[in-house]
Amino acid sequence: MDGCKRLSASHPPPDTTQTMGHDHDYDCSFVTDVVTEGRVSTAEDVLDAHAKDEGPHEAHRPDVVVWPDSTREIAALLAEANDRTVPVTPWSGGTSIEGNPIPVAGGIVLNTSEFDEITVRHDDLQAVVGPGVVYDDLNAALASHNLRFAPGIAAGDIATIGGMIANNASGLNAVRYGVTGDHVLRLEVVLPDGRIIECGRDVPKSTAGYNLKDLFVGSEGTLGVITEATLSLEGIAQHRHAALVTFPSSVAASQAVSTIMASGLTPGALEFMDTQLVELLNDYNDDADFPAAPLLLIELHGNSGDLSTQMDRVRTICEDHDAIEWSEADTDDIETIWRARRDAYPAACEYYADQTVGVIGDVVVPISRYPDIVSRIETISDELELLTPCVGHAGDGNIHFLPVVDTDDPAAMDRVQELTDAIVSEALELGGTATGEHGIGIGKRKFMRQEHGDAVDVMSGIKDAIDPRGIMNPGKTLPNDD
Amino acid sequence: MDGCKRLSASHPPPDTTQTMGHDHDYDCSFVTDVVTEGRVSTAEDVLDAHAKDEGPHEAHRPDVVVWPDSTREIAALLAEANDRTVPVTPWSGGTSIEGNPIPVAGGIVLNTSEFDEITVRHDDLQAVVGPGVVYDDLNAALASHNLRFAPGIAAGDIATIGGMIANNASGLNAVRYGVTGDHVLRLEVVLPDGRIIECGRDVPKSTAGYNLKDLFVGSEGTLGVITEATLSLEGIAQHRHAALVTFPSSVAASQAVSTIMASGLTPGALEFMDTQLVELLNDYNDDADFPAAPLLLIELHGNSGDLSTQMDRVRTICEDHDAIEWSEADTDDIETIWRARRDAYPAACEYYADQTVGVIGDVVVPISRYPDIVSRIETISDELELLTPCVGHAGDGNIHFLPVVDTDDPAAMDRVQELTDAIVSEALELGGTATGEHGIGIGKRKFMRQEHGDAVDVMSGIKDAIDPRGIMNPGKTLPNDD
Repeated sequence: MDGCKRLSASHPPPDTTQTMGHDHDYDCSFVTDVVTEGRVSTAEDVLDAHAKDEGPHEAHRPDVVVWPDSTREIAALLAEANDRTVPVTPWSGGTSIEGNPIPVAGGIVLNTSEFDEITVRHDDLQAVVGPGVVYDDLNAALASHNLRFAPGIAAGDIATIGGMIANNASGLNAVRYGVTGDHVLRLEVVLPDGRIIECGRDVPKSTAGYNLKDLFVGSEGTLGVITEATLSLEGIAQHRHAALVTFPSSVAASQAVSTIMASGLTPGALEFMDTQLVELLNDYNDDADFPAAPLLLIELHGNSGDLSTQMDRVRTICEDHDAIEWSEADTDDIETIWRARRDAYPAACEYYADQTVGVIGDVVVPISRYPDIVSRIETISDELELLTPCVGHAGDGNIHFLPVVDTDDPAAMDRVQELTDAIVSEALELGGTATGEHGIGIGKRKFMRQEHGDAVDVMSGIKDAIDPRGIMNPGKTLPNDD
Repeated sequence: MDGCKRLSASHPPPDTTQTMGHDHDYDCSFVTDVVTEGRVSTAEDVLDAHAKDEGPHEAHRPDVVVWPDSTREIAALLAEANDRTVPVTPWSGGTSIEGNPIPVAGGIVLNTSEFDEITVRHDDLQAVVGPGVVYDDLNAALASHNLRFAPGIAAGDIATIGGMIANNASGLNAVRYGVTGDHVLRLEVVLPDGRIIECGRDVPKSTAGYNLKDLFVGSEGTLGVITEATLSLEGIAQHRHAALVTFPSSVAASQAVSTIMASGLTPGALEFMDTQLVELLNDYNDDADFPAAPLLLIELHGNSGDLSTQMDRVRTICEDHDAIEWSEADTDDIETIWRARRDAYPAACEYYADQTVGVIGDVVVPISRYPDIVSRIETISDELELLTPCVGHAGDGNIHFLPVVDTDDPAAMDRVQELTDAIVSEALELGGTATGEHGIGIGKRKFMRQEHGDAVDVMSGIKDAIDPRGIMNPGKTLPNDD
């Protein structure tokens, strides 16, 4: 794999309908009765492109890829597939890490890229969007309204709203603005048997009945296909003020995070990088000359030019936690501060010419346990003789670990898997979760029972109630122990 | 009913175990095998106190009330009740409006008031609490940590966390801090068959599996019994600044709400009162002398003394929307502004000596439709010859209507019901919801199909999967059409 290069399989549909001549797992010839010519493909390169996301997981090629262009078409397709017990795996931007949208047993991949409409309801602070809308495109469309869809994901140039909802994606700005699910007010969903339902309403709050909306958010396409969403939006803060602070230890940095979060300040971003990553940054960028020590990046958002007062308060907190170096920048030159964060992943990737990031790990622990997980990652990496720089959304207790290895060396990749298993188990023992942003997909099914215990049986019961034939994205999310 | 007087049935358990001598719907004698002596009652006054919440709904007395004091005891009780198909209705503070915690067919009322432990995890910005903890008691315990559980409900002196979670309660401060569910990280739940599960983890975010936590939040005790919750907390803002603004029309006031919300400012509260209510306030309080016109109450929260700049921005927005009068106050004398809001309900109650509020209506519409719902409520009230002052959390699109009638006059109460039905239908047609804060309970079941369509069948499927014998709080939440 090339962990630094991103490919999207969400291209427009091919020009010609392909014949279904190849060996297949399921007879999917019925799809051409439902989805119009030109939006169905069995071309080898198309099947290949939909058999791989950005993670290391091996999957099974689909038998066919379809690009439906209406909710009714999806409803008809699912009803037919359900009758025939043919698996259907929804596909969005393909930027996932855990194999979330790639089939494990063939069948149909349902690419939602045709659903790319955006309707902005400015006075309601809402947008109604299709699942195929790209995150950055949505925010570009919202900019003229001075509004924003705020979770702040890393792959925003490719990832789509459908995938973000299905995986409850988030990133840099979730610490202030919440994760994707916090911004979803309503979903139109096609159920596995072809029924179309609405989950939630176009209002800021409701207490009317069971919360189906948040059941479908994060369900990774295993319960139905999302065909439309109403999102709540934020006004864009007029002022930003950022600081980069170095600490003598990750414990000191983590404690500063707790204190900042408890202070009543609401940072727009609060990021951590460990010493290893800082050293890689110094290697990567000739202009970078950070002390070899953990750092925090803190950004404040506001509307009345008062941010320097608030930032002074952050600085005092950091100094109380023995901060070594402090630099700051405001709205206009804020990128000078954020360059360090932007360079984190490429710096890790390009550490050696023949090595790259084996996996992007993703766990969350309670904020107070952040120093513990950082130090445990260090110990486990040392034991496995891996270089594992870390970067994370510290304000959320979220940490990404980036083991740098030769990804073509199976023995090295085995150690990466061992590392991941050990770190996830450690996070769970610290009261954390196996995944803060990337979801369960294929890769983390084995931790579901450890994390959730008997609650997994309730999840399975819900899956059976909604998708009794198990056609929706089989082999994902729920554990493989039952 | 006395709409202004609040009674709590969540008193400590009685001193003596009562015999089960009265006529009963279910044989509940088994409960004394499970719940220890002194925490079981069939006393008439106890049964009566658990057959009525603060709303107008008639219910059925329970056969027995129990006060379990451990999760294991609840698990054993539910397992036995499930074997015998005996209804169990969880009871918290009893401050609900829609009959949410009152039995409709006898059986067991399970009072959670013994679960009143609070553990504050300051560094994690979390508290672990039992369902019997009173909202104000929790915030009193958090104050020394400079932390707060923020939804801001009206009945905070009686309502408990269990009921708040079961109904996904919210109030004044939800516009900035979110509703109860937004602050629930983890729940311990006893399922109807006695299994104990954990939903969610003690972390700010997770994408591990289906979101069961938000399925149990707002499920009104129909899926299981919540026995413990981890809540996320907020730092307490050091500065508050409030303004009271009068507008020439409810349309102008509503448009100012939209503009304020879209401005990137995040008010701590944003409340609306209509002309009728303002006139009642002038009657009620000798010091009050508001222009007879709609008003907004706006509060800003912050930490760096900068609020006057932000408030100037709010003022400019209000002036752009033709505001008539403006008054403001800061942290120390902020109660002068909020007295108007605090007086709203008593003012409506005491309008005439022999009349009171027939029902507290509760609908939400998209913010842009706020003027429409206000004007429709006015029209419907005129048609039904009812005086219906309105007050609401305008920043959330939430409005409460308070028809003032002689509640002992059945014909008047019929008109109140007609009013409620018409306003809810109108809210639904405007894209809104039947309830923003009070839940479905008994009173709003009839709107579930209109609001949710076929999604109701998915809710029923989930209910059947989790509670196949239907013992948990039967006759609530789901509609009575199936």
